Amino acid sequence: MTYELYYWSGIQGRGEFVRLTLEDAGANYVDIAAQPNGDEKLSAFMERDGLRRPPFAPPFLRNGDLVIGQTAAILMYLGDRLGLAPTGEAERLWAHQIQLTIADMVGEAHDTHHPISAHLYYEDQKSEALRRATHFRELRIPKYLDWFERILARNPHGDAYLVGGGASYADLSLFQLVEGLLYAFPNKAKATLAKASRVAALHQRIGARPRIQAYIESGRRIEFNEQGIFRHYGELDP
Amino acid sequence: MTYELYYWSGIQGRGEFVRLTLEDAGANYVDIAAQPNGDEKLSAFMERDGLRRPPFAPPFLRNGDLVIGQTAAILMYLGDRLGLAPTGEAERLWAHQIQLTIADMVGEAHDTHHPISAHLYYEDQKSEALRRATHFRELRIPKYLDWFERILARNPHGDAYLVGGGASYADLSLFQLVEGLLYAFPNKAKATLAKASRVAALHQRIGARPRIQAYIESGRRIEFNEQGIFRHYGELDP
Repeated sequence: MTYELYYWSGIQGRGEFVRLTLEDAGANYVDIAAQPNGDEKLSAFMERDGLRRPPFAPPFLRNGDLVIGQTAAILMYLGDRLGLAPTGEAERLWAHQIQLTIADMVGEAHDTHHPISAHLYYEDQKSEALRRATHFRELRIPKYLDWFERILARNPHGDAYLVGGGASYADLSLFQLVEGLLYAFPNKAKATLAKASRVAALHQRIGARPRIQAYIESGRRIEFNEQGIFRHYGELDP
Repeated sequence: MTYELYYWSGIQGRGEFVRLTLEDAGANYVDIAAQPNGDEKLSAFMERDGLRRPPFAPPFLRNGDLVIGQTAAILMYLGDRLGLAPTGEAERLWAHQIQLTIADMVGEAHDTHHPISAHLYYEDQKSEALRRATHFRELRIPKYLDWFERILARNPHGDAYLVGGGASYADLSLFQLVEGLLYAFPNKAKATLAKASRVAALHQRIGARPRIQAYIESGRRIEFNEQGIFRHYGELDP
């Protein structure tokens, strides 16, 4: 079974959360963004008249006739199939709930540089970005990381993973969230992680997983840049 | 089995999406927000040291020992139990994907009046709100409603419901989304719905369901107001 992942080329974006789960599982998948004319293939696929369940936006995953959009829904689907989700209803819902909260923080991180509209350049909403980023940095980063720290501390199976005793897609996503925060807001992220030792340790633990390490060293992982969701603008993290 | 719904009192907010599904199913539930000192009960519950899976934010649902946060996750759980979700993996995922897209639009609607921070008053971010609302109104409302219109048109079971041949929590949520847009942006919402006849018809169809009608007429439904997610500020919908 070969999965196809559709996402825009040139950025990690939300597609990277899906890639990490596919990579960690050693899944057989085609990354359309890495193919020639990937963006055209993506647009052509989304605009097919016959597409029964057209996603609102990338990323989306194709598995034969099944097309799934929304990062958290894709991960719930893949997690079950790839051994990267807990079993049991309560724990499955909990992993998904954590993923949805990560998605909320990702949306807020995006809006620090695009507080007015995704259709305007950063330079055209910079004064608003300075205001929004200040609130995100000072209030939201600590609040979210405190929550992740607290739920790790309360895991009855120990604080190595978010849900149960083994890694799930939620851990891979928290790794990616921390990576993004360290790139975009290095000063604030490092200072906050210094007080969230469980989150910092999870970030290290996931980054050391053999397939994640191999993926990072493969050169296939797109580097963070100022086209993506996590952007480093020095003025937003003084 | 009695469900408990925890949400802030005085506003519909995200809690209303959960209420509509509970109401439409005739479920036995306690609305903590409608109780004396509901907000204190909510805060006390969330802050319990022993809470194994503490939600990041309301709304959350309690069913015995199970506590579920994140609106879309709550609705996926309730939909299955209350006969308001499709059966079959592909259709269940599709309903959830639609719900997550509704949640994205709800977040964007909120940020039209709070583009900088939820911790500031509207009056302290009004100039930014005017800019953000213009983009939301002119670009996002048409884009989202076009998508809902398109997926209704492509439902092989007919265009009466979003998924399959019967109502699901996704339809109830689209009803609520349209209600909110008509309250907050009446001019733009009416003009856009005039070109999205399937969405407009679904809104009418859901509003005419006996239990939804009874709920609205009961006086228990909190009215839209300028404390909630959907707020009517004339300057944001000229």
